Amino acid sequence: MGANGTIGKAVAAELSQRHEIVTAGRSSGTFQVNTADPKSVRELFSAVAKLDAVVCAAGNVHFGPLEEMTAEQFDIGLRDKLMGQVNLVLAGREFLNPGGSFTLTAGTLAQDPIRFGSSASMVNGALESFVRAAAIELPGHRINAVSPSVLLESMDAYGAYFRGFEPVPAKRVALAFSRSVEGSQTGQIYRVE
Amino acid sequence: MGANGTIGKAVAAELSQRHEIVTAGRSSGTFQVNTADPKSVRELFSAVAKLDAVVCAAGNVHFGPLEEMTAEQFDIGLRDKLMGQVNLVLAGREFLNPGGSFTLTAGTLAQDPIRFGSSASMVNGALESFVRAAAIELPGHRINAVSPSVLLESMDAYGAYFRGFEPVPAKRVALAFSRSVEGSQTGQIYRVE
Repeated sequence: MGANGTIGKAVAAELSQRHEIVTAGRSSGTFQVNTADPKSVRELFSAVAKLDAVVCAAGNVHFGPLEEMTAEQFDIGLRDKLMGQVNLVLAGREFLNPGGSFTLTAGTLAQDPIRFGSSASMVNGALESFVRAAAIELPGHRINAVSPSVLLESMDAYGAYFRGFEPVPAKRVALAFSRSVEGSQTGQIYRVE
Repeated sequence: MGANGTIGKAVAAELSQRHEIVTAGRSSGTFQVNTADPKSVRELFSAVAKLDAVVCAAGNVHFGPLEEMTAEQFDIGLRDKLMGQVNLVLAGREFLNPGGSFTLTAGTLAQDPIRFGSSASMVNGALESFVRAAAIELPGHRINAVSPSVLLESMDAYGAYFRGFEPVPAKRVALAFSRSVEGSQTGQIYRVE
C-alpha cells in the first residue's frame, strides 16, 4: 500500500528481488483503495489473492502551528495515517497466510517533535503503541512498524522543518521493511535514524 | 475534569489542600461538559474564571478482542479519551494564566499491552507523543501527562485483565498530578507503576 511513494518505491524495489508484489494506492498501483474507509479496504483484500505480507507506506497528516490546529485538522491524521493503517490490519487478518505479517509506517516525530508536527507526533505515537498491543492478539501473524526519520529525498520540501535531523535515504528505510517482512520478530518498532 | 472519578477525587483531595478547585465532568462536578465536542469545551472555559491549571482525568475507550474490534469501536477512544483531552488543550490555552499548565491522563498500556486493550494502548501512545509535541508549541504554558498502571481501587473490576501488574493506589497517582501542576517541568510523562 502506497507503493508509488518515496518509501513505497524503495520497499517494492527491495522486496521484488525475492517476492511477487501486488501494489495498491489511493490513485496509483494495481488496486485503488481508500484506506480510511473499512469497506474499501475489505473490497481490496477480497480482490487480491491470499497474501504473505501486508506493507503500508501511506498516510496523510496535517501540519500546522498548534495554536491554529482544530479538532478537524487532527482528525485528518487520525482517519488517514492512523486508522487507514489499522483498517488494513482489521480487514487483512483473514486474507493473510499463516505466518504472514503486517508492517506499518510510523515516524520519528513520536519521540522527537518539531514545530507544526503535533498531529504527526500524535499519530506516530498511536501507531507504535497499537503495533505493540496488536502483536499479542494476532495469533499466527506478526505485526511491526518502521519509524523513519526525515527522508533524504524529502529534504528539499521539508528540510526547513527538520534542521539538525540526520536525513535517511529511502533505501535504508526499505531495509527495515525487509527486516519486518522477512524476519520473524513481532511487536517491534524499527527505527531508521 | 473528571473530578468525580477514582483518580479525579484523589487529585482534588491532594490539590484542594493548597488550591481552589473548579470541578467539571460529563454528568458530575460544578460544570458539565462533553469534551469530545469542541464547542462544549469552549463554553466550559468561557463560563469559568481564568485558570492556573487544567487537569483532566477523564476519558473512555472500548475494550475488546482485536479480532472483533471495528473502526467504530476504535473511534470511541479517539473521540473521547484522546481528542477529549486534546480539545481541552486547544480551547483552554487562551483561558490559562501565564505559567499555567495542562495535565492529561495516559496509561501504562502504551508500553505494556494487555489482551483486549489495543484501543487503550493506541490512545495512550497518542497522548504521550502529543504531550511531548505540544510542549514545544505552548510558549508560556506547560503540558505533561500522568501514565498510571492499573489502580488498586479498580482491581475488583479489572484485576483479571491485569494479572501480574502491580496496582497503584489513586493517592500515589494524585502525587504525579501534583508534581505536574505544582512543579515546573513540561513535556514529561509521569509514570506511576
